[in-house]
Formats: sequence, structure tokens, C-alpha cells
Amino acid sequence: MRQFVVIGHEAPTTPDFPLDDLPGVAGRLDVLCRCVNAALFLSHGIREDVRLRLVLGDTFTLRVEGEEVRGLHPDERSTAARIRSALERSDEAIGHQPVETSPGIYLTRQGVEPTLREVAEEGTLVQLHEDGEPIVGSKAPNDPVFVLSDHRDFTTGEATLLDELDARQVRLGPRALHADHAITVVQNYLDTDGFERY
Amino acid sequence: MRQFVVIGHEAPTTPDFPLDDLPGVAGRLDVLCRCVNAALFLSHGIREDVRLRLVLGDTFTLRVEGEEVRGLHPDERSTAARIRSALERSDEAIGHQPVETSPGIYLTRQGVEPTLREVAEEGTLVQLHEDGEPIVGSKAPNDPVFVLSDHRDFTTGEATLLDELDARQVRLGPRALHADHAITVVQNYLDTDGFERY
Repeated sequence: MRQFVVIGHEAPTTPDFPLDDLPGVAGRLDVLCRCVNAALFLSHGIREDVRLRLVLGDTFTLRVEGEEVRGLHPDERSTAARIRSALERSDEAIGHQPVETSPGIYLTRQGVEPTLREVAEEGTLVQLHEDGEPIVGSKAPNDPVFVLSDHRDFTTGEATLLDELDARQVRLGPRALHADHAITVVQNYLDTDGFERY
Repeated sequence: MRQFVVIGHEAPTTPDFPLDDLPGVAGRLDVLCRCVNAALFLSHGIREDVRLRLVLGDTFTLRVEGEEVRGLHPDERSTAARIRSALERSDEAIGHQPVETSPGIYLTRQGVEPTLREVAEEGTLVQLHEDGEPIVGSKAPNDPVFVLSDHRDFTTGEATLLDELDARQVRLGPRALHADHAITVVQNYLDTDGFERY
């Protein structure tokens, strides 16, 4: 199982955003939509071995299960519509009980900290970080959980929490990449036996 | 200089498409928009060492010069709007003379064959192909020109032409990727000294 967590600092937490302005009014939701694409899509199908979580504004977490999700399309707009329809049902997400808002997509009322603590129980946290060890030559942990930030850096609080949870820091290359590009590169490393091929 | 050519088989050749339905009415223009993103964007800027060509429906070729382009945004919709406004000026593209439709973006009235013959003069063609030699362990040519197809396979005619132009066939991994993901993976290989690091 490959896992990805993307923290969307400015992502919407209510469904009242227009699909015509994802980068603006919708708080760079375009970035998160491309992360869904990068995490889930192969040329001819869905990556069933993937679990992706998007943390929306430190309030909700949207979980996408590759094995269960249906009818997902690769474009930003339709993915944003799926996120919006999930937020329309946020009233049903009570306590830490997720609500399945469409097949394989679950909304939970929890922000960054409980989500990171939850995934730390499910695998080994790997933080993509420009000061991390190079991915080339390093070995992938079993059940890796890659944690990324959207267009902004991790907050001090998030970085401290990742340290506390023993997140490894890994660097993909000399150039800082968008979160979705980073996910695509990581997928290729894992596809090609990842860190073990050298 | 890194070059990418993406052949958009169903891409629009007139500007009368809606920005609200890129995957449908606009002939999977969403794929081409993500290719622009993957080819041009770094986390904090534009890749100035990149030249990208999108072949639109075997009729026009849109060329984006990383060194010159201005005001490009990473989301699909705004990129599609840029392509649409280029097509609004297609009358000005006469013969094989390009017209600069916005800074660093050039539209030329030429389809697949003249475009591939043109880029073959500018560098070494590399075709991403599932039967190609693995990118791992192979050496990048100088001035590579990566040629990709959109969501469809290359036509027989395109494949024959690529053979004639001595395009190397390279494989990125065991799983077939979307064109934009393939560009992102190639960029990372080149960023990390690409094929030479092994």
C-alpha cells in the first residue's frame, strides 16, 4: 500500500466555491486536484494500491481509496466537483466517523494533527523535503506514507509534529517541485522498484 | 535545451470550445494543458530551458518557449484559455510562419509531419514507448526531444515517421503513464543528471 497525504492550507472547507476559479476563490484547489490525479491515475486505469488523503483547511480530511473509487476523471474540474459534493455532506461527518460521500471517497471531520497521527500508525512517514536524503540510493520503507504540502511550506507546527512522528526526510532532486509532480516522481520510483534498483 | 512534443489527436483547431468541458467537447485538451504544466513549471518558477510543442489536430502547432513565456498559470483552465486565444488568431498564421499569440507562445500552421521533421533538426528524438530500452541505465542524448502522444497511441503513420527519423525508444517503467506524468518523470531524470547518474 502506497499512501499520500497532502495538506491543503487554503483549501475550502465549505462547498460554496465556483468550479471556474479553482486557483483563486477555491484556495488553490487546482493543486489538490492534480495531486488526486498524480496519486490515482495510470494511463489505463486507477492505481488500486493507493490511499490518498487531502487535508482541507485543517478542518476536514478527504480520503480516496484507489481500490474502491469509481468514476473518477483525470481533469481538475471534475475532481473539484467531487470534492465539492463531499463538502456538501460535511454535516454527516460527526466526531471522527467518516462519511462515504461517493464510492471510495470518505470525508472525516479532522484536521492535520489527528490525520498525521492516524497515518503514522499505518506506515512509515516520509516527508518530501529539500534538505532530505536523496531518493536516489535510499531504500523505500515498507508501507510508505508520503506527506506533502500544497503550494505553501509546512507550518512550524506541522514540521514539529512530523519530527515527533519520526518522519524520514527525502529529497527528489535539486529542483523544488510542485506537490503533484513530486507524487508522480515518487510513483515512478516505486513502480521501478523504487529506491532498491541501484 | 529540453524539448517535448505532444501530439493531440483530438485537440481543437478552432477556438469555439468551452473552458468548462475540456475533456469532452474540447477533445481531451485537459491532457495537453497538464502537459504544459509538467513541461514548464517548477515549484517557484518556469523552466527556462524547455521548449514545448503541442500539435493540435494535425493542423496547427503551438510552441511554448520557457525562456520567453509570461503569465502562465499551472491550472488547466487558464492554460486552455491561452490555447483558445492563440487559436483565435490562427488566420494570422500563414504558410509556415509562426505568429506570436502571447509572450513566448507561437502558433504555426503545420501538423505532425513538418513539426517532427523540424524538431529532428534541433535535437535527438526520443519516443516514450512501452517496448523501449529502460530509462534506468541509459544515457540521455544531448538536446533530447521527447515525443509523446496524448491519450491515444501514435498512429501507424506517426510511428513510421518516428522510425524514419531515428527516434530512440525509451521506457520509463513497467506501468503505462499519462503523457503529463511521463513528462514529469523525464524532467526528474534530467534534473538529477538523468541517465548519467548510474
